Amino acid sequence: MAISKDFNGDFGNRLSKRLFPSDLATREVASHLYELVADLPIISPHGHVDPKLLLENQPFVDAAELFLYFDHYVTRLLHADGISLEETGKGARTPESALNAWKILCSKWHLLAGTASGYWITHSLVTLFGINEVPSKENAEELFTTINQKLSEKEFLPRTLFTTFNIEFLATTDDPIDDLSAHSALAADPTFRGRVVPTFRPDKYLDLTHPEWLASVRSLLALTGDASTYQGFIGSLENRRAFFIQHGAISADHGVRTPYTTHLTNDEAEAIFARALSGTATATDAKQFGGHMLVEMARMSCDDGLVMTLHAGVHRNHSTETFKKFGADTGHDIPIEAEFVENLHPLLERYGLNPKLHLIIFSLDETTWSRDVAPLAGFYPSVFIGAPWWFLDSPDGLRRFREITTDIAGFYRGSGFIDDTRAFLSIPARHDAARRVDCGYLARLVLEGRITLQEAEKIAVDLVVDIPKRAFKL
Amino acid sequence: MAISKDFNGDFGNRLSKRLFPSDLATREVASHLYELVADLPIISPHGHVDPKLLLENQPFVDAAELFLYFDHYVTRLLHADGISLEETGKGARTPESALNAWKILCSKWHLLAGTASGYWITHSLVTLFGINEVPSKENAEELFTTINQKLSEKEFLPRTLFTTFNIEFLATTDDPIDDLSAHSALAADPTFRGRVVPTFRPDKYLDLTHPEWLASVRSLLALTGDASTYQGFIGSLENRRAFFIQHGAISADHGVRTPYTTHLTNDEAEAIFARALSGTATATDAKQFGGHMLVEMARMSCDDGLVMTLHAGVHRNHSTETFKKFGADTGHDIPIEAEFVENLHPLLERYGLNPKLHLIIFSLDETTWSRDVAPLAGFYPSVFIGAPWWFLDSPDGLRRFREITTDIAGFYRGSGFIDDTRAFLSIPARHDAARRVDCGYLARLVLEGRITLQEAEKIAVDLVVDIPKRAFKL
Amino acid sequence: MAISKDFNGDFGNRLSKRLFPSDLATREVASHLYELVADLPIISPHGHVDPKLLLENQPFVDAAELFLYFDHYVTRLLHADGISLEETGKGARTPESALNAWKILCSKWHLLAGTASGYWITHSLVTLFGINEVPSKENAEELFTTINQKLSEKEFLPRTLFTTFNIEFLATTDDPIDDLSAHSALAADPTFRGRVVPTFRPDKYLDLTHPEWLASVRSLLALTGDASTYQGFIGSLENRRAFFIQHGAISADHGVRTPYTTHLTNDEAEAIFARALSGTATATDAKQFGGHMLVEMARMSCDDGLVMTLHAGVHRNHSTETFKKFGADTGHDIPIEAEFVENLHPLLERYGLNPKLHLIIFSLDETTWSRDVAPLAGFYPSVFIGAPWWFLDSPDGLRRFREITTDIAGFYRGSGFIDDTRAFLSIPARHDAARRVDCGYLARLVLEGRITLQEAEKIAVDLVVDIPKRAFKL
Repeated sequence: MAISKDFNGDFGNRLSKRLFPSDLATREVASHLYELVADLPIISPHGHVDPKLLLENQPFVDAAELFLYFDHYVTRLLHADGISLEETGKGARTPESALNAWKILCSKWHLLAGTASGYWITHSLVTLFGINEVPSKENAEELFTTINQKLSEKEFLPRTLFTTFNIEFLATTDDPIDDLSAHSALAADPTFRGRVVPTFRPDKYLDLTHPEWLASVRSLLALTGDASTYQGFIGSLENRRAFFIQHGAISADHGVRTPYTTHLTNDEAEAIFARALSGTATATDAKQFGGHMLVEMARMSCDDGLVMTLHAGVHRNHSTETFKKFGADTGHDIPIEAEFVENLHPLLERYGLNPKLHLIIFSLDETTWSRDVAPLAGFYPSVFIGAPWWFLDSPDGLRRFREITTDIAGFYRGSGFIDDTRAFLSIPARHDAARRVDCGYLARLVLEGRITLQEAEKIAVDLVVDIPKRAFKL
Repeated sequence: MAISKDFNGDFGNRLSKRLFPSDLATREVASHLYELVADLPIISPHGHVDPKLLLENQPFVDAAELFLYFDHYVTRLLHADGISLEETGKGARTPESALNAWKILCSKWHLLAGTASGYWITHSLVTLFGINEVPSKENAEELFTTINQKLSEKEFLPRTLFTTFNIEFLATTDDPIDDLSAHSALAADPTFRGRVVPTFRPDKYLDLTHPEWLASVRSLLALTGDASTYQGFIGSLENRRAFFIQHGAISADHGVRTPYTTHLTNDEAEAIFARALSGTATATDAKQFGGHMLVEMARMSCDDGLVMTLHAGVHRNHSTETFKKFGADTGHDIPIEAEFVENLHPLLERYGLNPKLHLIIFSLDETTWSRDVAPLAGFYPSVFIGAPWWFLDSPDGLRRFREITTDIAGFYRGSGFIDDTRAFLSIPARHDAARRVDCGYLARLVLEGRITLQEAEKIAVDLVVDIPKRAFKL
Repeated sequence: MAISKDFNGDFGNRLSKRLFPSDLATREVASHLYELVADLPIISPHGHVDPKLLLENQPFVDAAELFLYFDHYVTRLLHADGISLEETGKGARTPESALNAWKILCSKWHLLAGTASGYWITHSLVTLFGINEVPSKENAEELFTTINQKLSEKEFLPRTLFTTFNIEFLATTDDPIDDLSAHSALAADPTFRGRVVPTFRPDKYLDLTHPEWLASVRSLLALTGDASTYQGFIGSLENRRAFFIQHGAISADHGVRTPYTTHLTNDEAEAIFARALSGTATATDAKQFGGHMLVEMARMSCDDGLVMTLHAGVHRNHSTETFKKFGADTGHDIPIEAEFVENLHPLLERYGLNPKLHLIIFSLDETTWSRDVAPLAGFYPSVFIGAPWWFLDSPDGLRRFREITTDIAGFYRGSGFIDDTRAFLSIPARHDAARRVDCGYLARLVLEGRITLQEAEKIAVDLVVDIPKRAFKL
């Protein structure tokens, strides 16, 4: 049987219509919509790029560093296939080990087929490096050389890529006691015109069970000069939020296992805080205090205007042995069931109707999209539906997200796309994927007579521009 | 790029093939199937239309009343966008405020794009009012005038619409102590030929935690003259069910947060009932009594033949502030996780194999369709799968429902489509949407060789006629 | 309206492109991929065919036995429609009752439309018996005669069908104390060349709440001559696993309601075991012991290499009345919520990184595919994603499985297709359905530019050959 050239062609040709539905009529409309948004600037209000990458503007070392070392979405799949994490970059890093890691990736390329990671890397190889071959054992060394050579060129320096990628806004993720000097320097640098701002991420200060809680809180109080009391602690957090806002921060990010919230009296909070300082806090104390502090963070957001993002539903560091050997972010954070309707009730009772609160909910449990999150965002002006995150930030995950949330809450209660990545090179690939999937979904609605083409055109652009700007108060 | 006229056309033209899959071959078969069912009468065995609407047959006031005031699915989306509920009709209603509310809806029309509500209103605007423009700030006033003018014409009187809509059967939802005089009067009116029957809805009599429980039960006992005992209470419920049946009722409807069931002895039930009357019932009492009463309602259904419908999985009135200011049904009832396999086990152990019981399960948690509901309905002759409800009664929700339940339980264990609406004008739009989605799904099965066209033709008609009639014993 | 001949044709013609997406471009690619795998041998590493069927090689009795008596997926749907289980084969079986049961099935054929069971029976009728008519009341008797006549022919003997079906490997499911004589005899029979091996299934020996636990464990200890102690019990299980391995077993299968795991000390386990023997074990004992024994089974798998399959998430025998009258496997095993991330944590902490463990997780709760199972399998080399099982082993269930798991874990962390059936004739239908759905999914990825055609070709074949062989260590 003869298959037409389109599908038989090389690695790159197939990419022009990628992620559009295969039905020709839908694809035609999707392509039309995509033309309207393909070249719009990228707004990235939540992610994990290190600001030093742009400040120092050093060339990337090699292909292994670029595509493998910092991406535990990729290394976990190699690990699952029996490759040791050492070999994928958690061990000593030499030019030889880098080439070896890259060879492993190429020879195991089939493991990534169909995954979000495989898609992003392909996008980068084709669009940035002009590589139109499927990586393999055979071409691994040649690809390594090709990529590394390009990386040494000026157009592959981080700042040049920042411009090439057309990034209008980029937020990093930062510790509350960070002096934000990298951000200051970058902002002060007349040769860099990008807008790069910090994000306030206080998780380990709010979670009494965090192994670094005590040391972290002591450092925080010392920095701000506040008293070692609950009131001092609150003051120091407010102080640092103000400092972050001065440096351009637009949001505070919260990662929790369970989004439990509750309200404690000052006396209750003070008592738990004192027990925590003296090392006698119980598990119940920790739960209550953590839940109370989420409500406090919402209160502060109502006061200072920082957008509050909430990521919930993960069992982090599932393999203790791996965690001990290689640390966090090594591929074994596993999603668990999430519940927002009851857990967030105390918070929303206090601040849900407050026009200054923007609470963006990110869930790894996609069953909560139709049950919890979209219905909450369809009523509370403060609640926004966070884009698919992590494992769900994938071609079909993005599609299911639209299908499930739009029926209930329309397009305008979402956060806009969030890349949430530490892999700088994947930023355009991720935003492009989201735009393509959204255009495909909009095209289907047009074909099914649910919206007009004109409505779809407006929505396609709004999803990329107005919607993230409104949700993140940009 | 040129997009063909079909998608570029006006608001109305696109509607003829609406909700059919865009693939041309599937669309061809779907259209063929739809032709068989498009004009069949509407059977509406569960909904919330007020019988007085048809009894009094007064013209609708204006476009705001028609599309906005009674539809908190719509007002919630405006509220989420920052509009106060007062402005959307919960405040004083004057001709000026009505026009203002309508203008808000039109100028915020993009918020409804892709939602079920947006779809229904579009359907009504086009098919009933001949409006082929997308509502907007610019045309809001003109549309308001056009609609209001039509509403004053005879063909827009509720009874005329009842005929135009081709409604064969309509059930309302009523309080057990309602005297059903509106139903009697309507049935006695020789100028109205529709079949409109009441539904027995005893929720607040069964839920000891309901603020009106005590007053409601006192009124009930006073009405039937039964003793203030558990036995008297049971007698009074049986009495009122008989009264409803005399007035044509075919079902009793039960809305619960959790479908917990249990069986108590008479002594246990009597003791809890006495505590409840004296105001000393505990939370456990309330749970046990509520669970027991669901089993009792199933027993009564086995005795008197009323179909038992069960709606579960909602946290009602999530925002206390909004509830206090504006009351119930104001857009903040939020779905929660549901579980039926264990919760309904005691009920099904007693009555699940009883051929007189028809228990139709409606779930807001779509994860229960494949896990709980379809498998239960695939075994117990008494259990039927309730159609997608509320947030899930949407184009993609209807489609997912078919895809998930059919593989497991086929087509014949469902309830048929249920509109469950208080928005009279949306009844034909909703039934039409369900028929279109079902025909699209059936067409796909034909194209995939899973059923023959002849089988699909029979099923398409059965879904609209035989299946609801059997489930609701019509 | 004229519908083209393809869909209007008879029962059989439509089958050549069955289960492929209707979009023509996708269908073209799917067909091409399917051609590569259509005729590959069947690997069936987990199922419930009785080895005596092949040993004795007796003709099937009649159409009722073949399609109805042993398939409670079918009988449950007739039961739900009001047919008694006696009439569908649970009562006396005479030629008359068989014809009667068959007539019921044919006259109720519409109940199976769209279901997995309906699809499999259709496949068998067309491909094995050349029956191209839709079963009905009218043709029931004629079909019965046609089928029964064929069944008496040599080509319909089980061994001939085994060859016709091109089964390369078939695993049965067996009691640990089974003497495996049927397997021995079959292996020793020079006239049979198939590879048929047992599977170790110790559920009732590990579950203290099982009514046959005590008798079963006594028989086991007596058989192996081990002491009535926990250590003796462990020894006897190890002994029998070795015996099964000698007879070709490749896996041990575990069916649990909840996949709870925990680790007990020897003293704790010994104490519970003693209480269980004396009839004084508590519910907590049972939970702890069951959880501990799953970890022990994983340990044994690390020692002896048997693949560990785990089926979780079922409330078995939901209707006590039906269970008492007709026993287990009568259609009322109902899926419940499952959770693997926390439940399996103790097991994975001990053995998750052990290269000898292969733990294949089968879940009836499809929400766990994206939340628990695929992410676990995307990290732990020991964890594999079990194919859709039971109610989810259906055309759309298979498709959803691929869409949800591939984004997260790719194609190479799965088990390959598992038919898990006791209906021998449905084996080729089931494997063919899985191949078709997978090719349709792969075709979509090609059309969407997510993988190349060459990648899809390799994956299509790997899914049928290499992937099950690796997961099951074949």
